[in-house]
Amino acid sequence: MSSIFGELFRISTFGESHGGGVGVVIDGCPPRIEISAEEIQEDLNRRKPGQSKITTPRKESDLCEIISGVFEGKTLGTPIAILVRNKDARSQDYDEMAVKYRPSHADATYDAKYGIRNWQGGGRSSARETIGRVAAGAIAKKILKQVAGVEIIAYVKSIKDIEATNINQDTVTLEQVESNIVRCPDSAIAEKMIDLIDQIRKEKDSLGGTLECVVRNVPRGLGEPVFDKLEADLAKAIMSLPATKGFEIGSGFAGTTLTGSQHNDEFYLDDNGIPRTVTNRSGGIQGGISNGENIVLRAAFKPTATIGKEQKTVSKEGEETTLAAKGRHDPCVLPRAVPMVEAMVALVLCDHLLRHHAQCNLIEN
Amino acid sequence: MSSIFGELFRISTFGESHGGGVGVVIDGCPPRIEISAEEIQEDLNRRKPGQSKITTPRKESDLCEIISGVFEGKTLGTPIAILVRNKDARSQDYDEMAVKYRPSHADATYDAKYGIRNWQGGGRSSARETIGRVAAGAIAKKILKQVAGVEIIAYVKSIKDIEATNINQDTVTLEQVESNIVRCPDSAIAEKMIDLIDQIRKEKDSLGGTLECVVRNVPRGLGEPVFDKLEADLAKAIMSLPATKGFEIGSGFAGTTLTGSQHNDEFYLDDNGIPRTVTNRSGGIQGGISNGENIVLRAAFKPTATIGKEQKTVSKEGEETTLAAKGRHDPCVLPRAVPMVEAMVALVLCDHLLRHHAQCNLIEN
Amino acid sequence: MSSIFGELFRISTFGESHGGGVGVVIDGCPPRIEISAEEIQEDLNRRKPGQSKITTPRKESDLCEIISGVFEGKTLGTPIAILVRNKDARSQDYDEMAVKYRPSHADATYDAKYGIRNWQGGGRSSARETIGRVAAGAIAKKILKQVAGVEIIAYVKSIKDIEATNINQDTVTLEQVESNIVRCPDSAIAEKMIDLIDQIRKEKDSLGGTLECVVRNVPRGLGEPVFDKLEADLAKAIMSLPATKGFEIGSGFAGTTLTGSQHNDEFYLDDNGIPRTVTNRSGGIQGGISNGENIVLRAAFKPTATIGKEQKTVSKEGEETTLAAKGRHDPCVLPRAVPMVEAMVALVLCDHLLRHHAQCNLIEN
Amino acid sequence: MSSIFGELFRISTFGESHGGGVGVVIDGCPPRIEISAEEIQEDLNRRKPGQSKITTPRKESDLCEIISGVFEGKTLGTPIAILVRNKDARSQDYDEMAVKYRPSHADATYDAKYGIRNWQGGGRSSARETIGRVAAGAIAKKILKQVAGVEIIAYVKSIKDIEATNINQDTVTLEQVESNIVRCPDSAIAEKMIDLIDQIRKEKDSLGGTLECVVRNVPRGLGEPVFDKLEADLAKAIMSLPATKGFEIGSGFAGTTLTGSQHNDEFYLDDNGIPRTVTNRSGGIQGGISNGENIVLRAAFKPTATIGKEQKTVSKEGEETTLAAKGRHDPCVLPRAVPMVEAMVALVLCDHLLRHHAQCNLIEN
Repeated sequence: MSSIFGELFRISTFGESHGGGVGVVIDGCPPRIEISAEEIQEDLNRRKPGQSKITTPRKESDLCEIISGVFEGKTLGTPIAILVRNKDARSQDYDEMAVKYRPSHADATYDAKYGIRNWQGGGRSSARETIGRVAAGAIAKKILKQVAGVEIIAYVKSIKDIEATNINQDTVTLEQVESNIVRCPDSAIAEKMIDLIDQIRKEKDSLGGTLECVVRNVPRGLGEPVFDKLEADLAKAIMSLPATKGFEIGSGFAGTTLTGSQHNDEFYLDDNGIPRTVTNRSGGIQGGISNGENIVLRAAFKPTATIGKEQKTVSKEGEETTLAAKGRHDPCVLPRAVPMVEAMVALVLCDHLLRHHAQCNLIEN
Repeated sequence: MSSIFGELFRISTFGESHGGGVGVVIDGCPPRIEISAEEIQEDLNRRKPGQSKITTPRKESDLCEIISGVFEGKTLGTPIAILVRNKDARSQDYDEMAVKYRPSHADATYDAKYGIRNWQGGGRSSARETIGRVAAGAIAKKILKQVAGVEIIAYVKSIKDIEATNINQDTVTLEQVESNIVRCPDSAIAEKMIDLIDQIRKEKDSLGGTLECVVRNVPRGLGEPVFDKLEADLAKAIMSLPATKGFEIGSGFAGTTLTGSQHNDEFYLDDNGIPRTVTNRSGGIQGGISNGENIVLRAAFKPTATIGKEQKTVSKEGEETTLAAKGRHDPCVLPRAVPMVEAMVALVLCDHLLRHHAQCNLIEN
Repeated sequence: MSSIFGELFRISTFGESHGGGVGVVIDGCPPRIEISAEEIQEDLNRRKPGQSKITTPRKESDLCEIISGVFEGKTLGTPIAILVRNKDARSQDYDEMAVKYRPSHADATYDAKYGIRNWQGGGRSSARETIGRVAAGAIAKKILKQVAGVEIIAYVKSIKDIEATNINQDTVTLEQVESNIVRCPDSAIAEKMIDLIDQIRKEKDSLGGTLECVVRNVPRGLGEPVFDKLEADLAKAIMSLPATKGFEIGSGFAGTTLTGSQHNDEFYLDDNGIPRTVTNRSGGIQGGISNGENIVLRAAFKPTATIGKEQKTVSKEGEETTLAAKGRHDPCVLPRAVPMVEAMVALVLCDHLLRHHAQCNLIEN
Repeated sequence: MSSIFGELFRISTFGESHGGGVGVVIDGCPPRIEISAEEIQEDLNRRKPGQSKITTPRKESDLCEIISGVFEGKTLGTPIAILVRNKDARSQDYDEMAVKYRPSHADATYDAKYGIRNWQGGGRSSARETIGRVAAGAIAKKILKQVAGVEIIAYVKSIKDIEATNINQDTVTLEQVESNIVRCPDSAIAEKMIDLIDQIRKEKDSLGGTLECVVRNVPRGLGEPVFDKLEADLAKAIMSLPATKGFEIGSGFAGTTLTGSQHNDEFYLDDNGIPRTVTNRSGGIQGGISNGENIVLRAAFKPTATIGKEQKTVSKEGEETTLAAKGRHDPCVLPRAVPMVEAMVALVLCDHLLRHHAQCNLIEN
């Protein structure tokens, strides 16, 4: 089920970077949700190429068309198909890559697996595939907001060894994230990140970094005890994005150096008598199930694999050679990955919202 | 689906820590695989409690019975049901925990989700649930070994801030891992780890750490391009284990501080003309698909939540109180988590082996 | 997935007719449902062998044990595992059938598919597999009754060419069905059916017939528009029972001889202003979705394949031969199929109840 | 999963009868299959409206566009998205039906389920939804033909009480089926059927009937023992088509009037020593698994619900009224249902071909 994600709020993406287009079919969306192409476009615009000097210059308007499932501005409960046409495809840039495998890219493994590959622009491994995710995520966000006031905010936490430390997870806003082109709400650090990316771009090299995502107002009870723990589904969602190499929830790897008495989140009762935790090393999830605190997760993105610098590689025909990649590529994927991460988190939470409602709200407690 | 995992090699676990027992049903296993309860028992014995001074003293023989799906020593292709009875359950230890929520445990979230909870010993959130996974994993390992010679070796990489550095991923053996009770193949470091765990046990506190798993002889082509990338399914598998807080593949979080030209794995041709990579920062997976190099992953396990030290908490009835947990608990879960990680990795790889065979080997290339 | 059924209320059955036992794991059951082994046993007793002179004389008490998922008499929301041990297995009866394929049975196709087969008593193709379905169905029935007052009544409609015609679908009761051993609520016809079955049993031959099932008080809105139409999922559920050859909903095959103006169910408003239909040729489902009228379906069961009469067949070793089957077999499966049909219908409806609740009741209309 | 079908060869359809268009995404298709839009169009043309005097006069060219998943004429192994735009939509015909429920149609149940409905032309319940199925079925047919020489031939067996009896299942061809507009290969009977449909069309009424489908050269071993029996999945596939009321495999309902000794298919060995059956009352499937004989199934289609004759109904606003439907509708759906049935059968068989290959061909016997 390579291209299908979710159990109840289920999406099916399609499309290659060069060809007729890319898109998504959303199955299982609740009916009577108000939604417009314009709302979806807002998130697509945050993802699209060519939006700033530190992203790929490929020009795609990425305008989406809702083919089905919405009638008079509301969801019908039937599949919502959304299509984005490919426009500015320069497949001639890829002639060399048709035969030479890009190091650390998907070229060689696709050939090994399928015995065939659309070598134009990365084909299915292109980040254009995430257009469908972001479009579906926009609808998931809307449902989460409407049902429970859920807020999902992702932002760049570090680029290479430049790390933002001055971010308040309880108050950080979308506006702060969008206030600069690297999407880091710590504006002083953001400037340094932008400069570093711009410099590496000129060197025909690339950079990686980490994203952090905080989710506020999560209802208690989402997630399931065993395989579909909320953090497990979030991990899969994030690790399914291109270029990810790591995932953390709450205290993450750093938490392994604490003792239990240091790490545990002690309980107290808030003014409404609801159990809350003093600290949040759990990252909003305990035993696989949300506890009502902020969900906090981080993702590691490696430096972009496709670079203009010459590297050793082999050809499809079995010869050792070198490659200095042509084409237009992001020197650093993180700024554009922000809406992708938000979308994946939204898809997981919306799916679990429906699942929890089905099993646990059928009969009143 | 909370307790079902896999698409083709699909397992369904059941059972609480106290009650009739725990187990698993495996659906979709290939027929004619030789398997015995004894072979499965070997891995269960590595997971069972009471095996050393640094694990919980709860005494469970964890003897497994194969109820169905095996006939005259071979798999039938029909569901394999495996049952392990619970024996040494001391539910009286849990009287206090029936009303007081353990900090950072699943008690409170289970109540919030289901409005009911088996408070005896953790119920479904107990690590006894992983018995079914380990049993199924033993069969998955056997298939992977038989079909492709795949070897899966997990081991303790760090406990708190003590980290093993002297491990050769190409040569480390099961025997080396099993040579000490902490399951760290770096024997000098292992001694220090054991001492630290033994000390923290006496302090009624607990420790966390990291596991590393290396998989050798992985066929090229396993994994799928988009949501079911091999690293995404591995991340979900690992993050579905109790107490995990983080996941890394290949270079992981450390890889984010390199540039693309530093991080990329350059290609060369081996003596058989097969494309190989000089380095392995990809961790054996590129574009979601295995490339034939070692798969290398790491998991972060937090310190055990249930500790004997007194902590602030709240009761089910809505009162602030304190709890010093009774019961028998692991001061550090990592030694017993080693076979769990191996099992989850085996389940993911075996599932993808079948999936790849279905789609890509149906018609000869 | 061969042995997994349902999307949200999902069951996984296991077991062969000879071996450790048979059973089921139910995943996704709502929490806090009162359930006891005794309640489940009631339906198992209606299914078990040896209950009358017209069923197989094999003696199995079929006592069920709830292994997990129920605590202090209520469901936990975690997997419910139910186990029934095999007792009166006489595998020596099957020595001949180990090598000779029974005509119209699963022996030859299992060998062709798997290259291995548990030849003792039918193995996985035995009707004992349905024990797990009936046990799970008992819980599904309880949920449907509790949530919406749903009543599911199946009964024998015809045996060979003897057909009951005097049954009122609005009023027929479980007591009427259980008032005779053939489970036909038309008592005059039932006598004739019993006599015919008893006679064919003595002739070492077998009979088939049809079952009808009526479901009352079905909530409107269950079922989905396209592939998971309610009648489609019911058809699959029924046709997955051993020995079924046909399925009808509402007017069925007879409806094909009417014109549209004759066949359509005209609408009227009942006293509460709810749209109802004057007739019910739709069988309670329109466009794949329940309309609140009685769901009415019928299933065709072929005569039992295993018979004592000598028949031409071939052996596993590739020789033409003859076989007069030993062993204890039902001369007619229909009386024991009644609780199986009820169970499958309950499983489908309970699953769709949860699915509908998830998608359409999340947000108030 | 209303709009997703299949486990490995998995399709996801989308679209309403009026709106942007309809289509399908196919996930899991084997790579390197030669396929063109022209080949798919052939089956779409057999399904499209306006093809003869006995179908609806709505004019739709139903031209398909392959958006993704095919490169240089071959499948990539990635999702294949196919889109057909809606053209000749006359939504003004549906103004009255926006408020009045058509008897025996999906109007009322959609409103009951979703609280919203695209009332233009049936929306999602329109037979236009089957375009995606037929397009995907064309690819499934090609794979089945290429891998095993499988031939799938469906045809009209009866219209009202006119039944074709002179059809040889071993030799009937697509050309014979396509030789007349009602798609009945018994040409004498076909004439009578056409006349009857033409007459009922003038009376503003409609007709039903039965389709038969024969599948030749089916590999032995397809299908699974329990819930996913081949006949169960075929039943679901067929009963998910609009207007179906019944399904039979092999002897069907008529088989219930035979005794076991009459009904059983005795075995013999063919010239290659392969077990074959003298008769085929099993319809090519035993124990849920194909036995290599012809698969033979039948489906009952009710008369078209939408008719021009005046009928009693109720309005959305809760008033009793009458309706004489405008719009352009098929007086009998069966001629156009022929490619739909073939497509659904192909989808089931292709899915099971992959599933069987995954589980049973991984390791050599």
